[in-house]
Amino acid sequence: MKNLITASTSTVYGGEYLDYITDEMAELFKDTEEVIFIPYARPGGISHDEYTEKAAKAFSKIGKKLVGLHTFDNPLEALKNAKGAFTGGGNTFVLVSALYRLEIMQPLREAIFNGLPYMGTSAGSNICGVSMQTTNDMPIVYPPSFKTLGVIPFNLNPHYLDPDPNSKHMGETRETRIAEFHTQNTIPVIGLREGSWLRVKGDEIMLKGELKARVFEQGKEPYEVKSGTSLKFH
Amino acid sequence: MKNLITASTSTVYGGEYLDYITDEMAELFKDTEEVIFIPYARPGGISHDEYTEKAAKAFSKIGKKLVGLHTFDNPLEALKNAKGAFTGGGNTFVLVSALYRLEIMQPLREAIFNGLPYMGTSAGSNICGVSMQTTNDMPIVYPPSFKTLGVIPFNLNPHYLDPDPNSKHMGETRETRIAEFHTQNTIPVIGLREGSWLRVKGDEIMLKGELKARVFEQGKEPYEVKSGTSLKFH
Repeated sequence: MKNLITASTSTVYGGEYLDYITDEMAELFKDTEEVIFIPYARPGGISHDEYTEKAAKAFSKIGKKLVGLHTFDNPLEALKNAKGAFTGGGNTFVLVSALYRLEIMQPLREAIFNGLPYMGTSAGSNICGVSMQTTNDMPIVYPPSFKTLGVIPFNLNPHYLDPDPNSKHMGETRETRIAEFHTQNTIPVIGLREGSWLRVKGDEIMLKGELKARVFEQGKEPYEVKSGTSLKFH
Repeated sequence: MKNLITASTSTVYGGEYLDYITDEMAELFKDTEEVIFIPYARPGGISHDEYTEKAAKAFSKIGKKLVGLHTFDNPLEALKNAKGAFTGGGNTFVLVSALYRLEIMQPLREAIFNGLPYMGTSAGSNICGVSMQTTNDMPIVYPPSFKTLGVIPFNLNPHYLDPDPNSKHMGETRETRIAEFHTQNTIPVIGLREGSWLRVKGDEIMLKGELKARVFEQGKEPYEVKSGTSLKFH
C-alpha cells in the first residue's frame, strides 16, 4: 500500500527547515530508525554531503538517522533495503537527470508502490507526478525524459503562487503557464501552496495543511479544494 | 553581418503589443516590405493564425506586411527567401520543439549569420542564446535538444525580475535559479528587464532601452550594466 507525503515546500515563511511538518514526518516514518535521503536536486548547487547534513539535522529532531543515498556504493541495493526515503527540493531537472543516470527512477517507483514510506518536498514532490512538466525550475540540465515516478495519477505544481493583482510584470502567471501545459497535455495538475501537502495512503490522496489547493483540469475552469479533501479524477 | 534585436518582452506594463519598440522595428526592417512571422511559441496556446493576426496588426503600423511561416508549404524555402523575420513570445519549449521538428533551427541560424534582419521578443529572444536553459517557461513539451540558435555568445533571461524584499514566497528567486544554472554551465547570462533589448550589429551587441540589465557570469558576483553598454565576454 502506498504511503507517502508530497509537500509543496520544505520551509514555510518565517520557519525552520521542515519544522511545520515534523509531526507528519514522525508518523510516516514511525516504523524505522533510519531514512534514506535522496540529495540529487542540489538546491543552489549545494553538495550532496552538505545537503544531507542539513536534512539530517531536521530528522534528528524526530529521532531518526538520515543517510545520503550518494554514500552507498550500490544505490539500487540501498533503495531496496530502505525502510523510508526522503527526497529534498532543489532543481527538478538535475534531480530527474540523476535518477535516470543512476537507473533508480523505476526501482524507486516500485518501492513506493510496494509501501516504502516516502516524503518529498518541492522537487522531491514534483517527481511523484506523472511527469515533471509542471515544475517551476529552470532547465539547467537536459534529462533523458520528463516522465517521473507516477505514484500519484496527476502532476503537481509546488510553491503554487496566486497571480498578484498589483504586479506590473508582464511574464506569464503560474495559472497561465499551467493553462499552456493543458494545451499540450491532459494530465490534471494540483497547485500546492506553501504549507500544503498531500497525504497518500493506498489509493486515497488527501490534501493536508491549512490552505486550499488549486486544481487545474484540461477544459475546465480551475477550482479550489479545501484541506481534508480526498482528490479523485476520472 | 548580423542584424538583430532581442527584446525582453513584447509588451511593457500599460502599453500595447510592441508599441514601445516600434521605431527600432521600423529601422531594423527598413529594407523590406514583408516580414516572416514565426508563431510557434503560441502564448496561452493561441493558434498560429490568431497569433499572426495579432502581430500583423502591430507591424501594419510601420507599413509592413507580416506573413506567418506556418502558411508556407515549404517553411525552409520561405526562410531562405525572407528579407526579415520576427519570432514572438510564448512557450520556449514549444517553440524550440517546432523549430527542430520543421528542421529550421540551423537554417534560421545561418540566415541570421548571413544578415537576415531578425527580431525576437521573450521566447523569440531566448532562442538567440547558446541554449534555452535560462528560460522561465514550463517544460510542457520535450524538445530534442536545449541547444538554440547561438547567434549571440551567451544566454538570455527575458522578463528578468529582481528579488522582492517583501516576498514571503519560499520558491527560488530568478537570481538563485541562474546561480544554479552556473553550477552546471559556464555560459554567461544576461537578465533583460522588461523594456530592455539588445541591438546586435555584426559583432557589436548593445544594451538598449531605459533600464539596466543584470549580468551573471560563472564564479563572479552578478553586476549591472547600463543602457548603451556594449556587451563583451572573454
